[in-house]
Amino acid sequence: MSDAIAFIGLGAMGLPMAKRLLGNGHKLRGFDLNPASLAALADAGGTPCQSAAIAADGAGTLVLMVVNAAQARAVLFEAKALDALAEGATVILMATCSPADALAIGEAVAATGRQFIDAPVSGGVVGAESGTLSIMAAAPNATFKAAEPLLKTMGQKLFHVGETWGQGASVKTINQLLCGVHIAVAAEAFALGEKAGLDGKLLLEILGGSAAASWMLNNRGPRMLQAEPEVASAVDIFVKDLGIVTDAGKAARMGLPLASTALQMFLAASGAGHGKADDSQVIRAYRALNGLE
Amino acid sequence: MSDAIAFIGLGAMGLPMAKRLLGNGHKLRGFDLNPASLAALADAGGTPCQSAAIAADGAGTLVLMVVNAAQARAVLFEAKALDALAEGATVILMATCSPADALAIGEAVAATGRQFIDAPVSGGVVGAESGTLSIMAAAPNATFKAAEPLLKTMGQKLFHVGETWGQGASVKTINQLLCGVHIAVAAEAFALGEKAGLDGKLLLEILGGSAAASWMLNNRGPRMLQAEPEVASAVDIFVKDLGIVTDAGKAARMGLPLASTALQMFLAASGAGHGKADDSQVIRAYRALNGLE
Repeated sequence: MSDAIAFIGLGAMGLPMAKRLLGNGHKLRGFDLNPASLAALADAGGTPCQSAAIAADGAGTLVLMVVNAAQARAVLFEAKALDALAEGATVILMATCSPADALAIGEAVAATGRQFIDAPVSGGVVGAESGTLSIMAAAPNATFKAAEPLLKTMGQKLFHVGETWGQGASVKTINQLLCGVHIAVAAEAFALGEKAGLDGKLLLEILGGSAAASWMLNNRGPRMLQAEPEVASAVDIFVKDLGIVTDAGKAARMGLPLASTALQMFLAASGAGHGKADDSQVIRAYRALNGLE
Repeated sequence: MSDAIAFIGLGAMGLPMAKRLLGNGHKLRGFDLNPASLAALADAGGTPCQSAAIAADGAGTLVLMVVNAAQARAVLFEAKALDALAEGATVILMATCSPADALAIGEAVAATGRQFIDAPVSGGVVGAESGTLSIMAAAPNATFKAAEPLLKTMGQKLFHVGETWGQGASVKTINQLLCGVHIAVAAEAFALGEKAGLDGKLLLEILGGSAAASWMLNNRGPRMLQAEPEVASAVDIFVKDLGIVTDAGKAARMGLPLASTALQMFLAASGAGHGKADDSQVIRAYRALNGLE
């Protein structure tokens, strides 16, 4: 089978991931709707293509680093990238999707005789650039083993979380549940601190070094104390990701009281016009709620 | 003024804190309702007393490491330890109290011409034994400066968080808000993992090393995966502490949606008979809620 890789979705995450594959000697053809991304791929030694199907033509591996499940379906089924792949090729879905979507897409791919890996990532742009992403992969053992070297090139922290499609998405969903709640509760904590007249920086120093610490507290905390921080990741990303979390809870008939409460705060922040602000600015919803403007 | 210290409340936290003061050359008289604690104090070179007022008689410093504000009031006012202190003595309240209680007690102490420091701690028994507690002290500058060496003996991480009594309690309250929500959301995450058929240990390994990590996830996570873990800190402690958090929110007219939601889960766990179980077992409330027994 062709060892060519088709890589669809060359955004902030996808482009550096594709570059790592190129740097490791893989032949890679890429597609993205953004011409600038295609030009950057060409600069890095990849082959830009005019459609997903052209990129996928005869390829042995298709990596999907698109925004969501809807885009993954559009690429595979509407743009016919799936049919263009070599027989027995492997599709690796790395976008953040709900467990139900990852399972459904996996079954549709398998129905054409091809392999499928449900493999979302975490670690952000920094992890994508340095190849230190966490990859939470679900696939039958043989499929996982065959793709392991390629996956390791993109993410040092590679976990085989199960053989059932959707389990990778479940781990990512749970990861985002914790991340989203941790950001929102940090905002709740700092807002209470503001109400009590406490110094935010001192509060962050104390809490960040105590049993109250979280990765998100220490990462988002400094930006939470700024009026107009640089946007590292937007409020609306967590509107989306906590939406996937609560959808997953709904599909599993599982009450998730903290995740659904945190989602309300991100929704309120977005509704107040802060959707494109840094996600630390969910604190603005707490300020509005509590007269702290 | 007498340099004798009166130390009231010689439990799991208080006794090792008193021992550190003794080890640093302080004269210390102690009182506790538990005779075994008094005997342990005598073994460590302290002077056990038959009442709080006897311990406080003429002392220049009174440390209160009792369970809550009600006990602090009982010691100071009903048992008349406050009146027994030297004129101008300093009262250091280190128990976890609400900001309103810490302020009210401070004002009552000040009305007798004595100094007051609102100085709750975090760091648990390990921190108490090693002198590495975090101490969040609120007091006028001069009062804080005078007590600084003594406080440092008990807690290396000493923070002067403000000059207004109640601000120390506010920081501790915010600390407990984060701790309680972080434990509950870890339980929410693991329960969703159980529903998705994921391996709990693998999930902990992935999440604990990612942006989803919190101090509590890594500390309580392993016990959350055990059916009957050793009790490090009980569910009912967080029923109390998150109760202080929501009471503080109520007093400040401040909505705390995540803290109040987390409290419901600890209450449900306690109501189901798990109040004396390790606080990681708040996950039992999630299992009951979602048919995961």
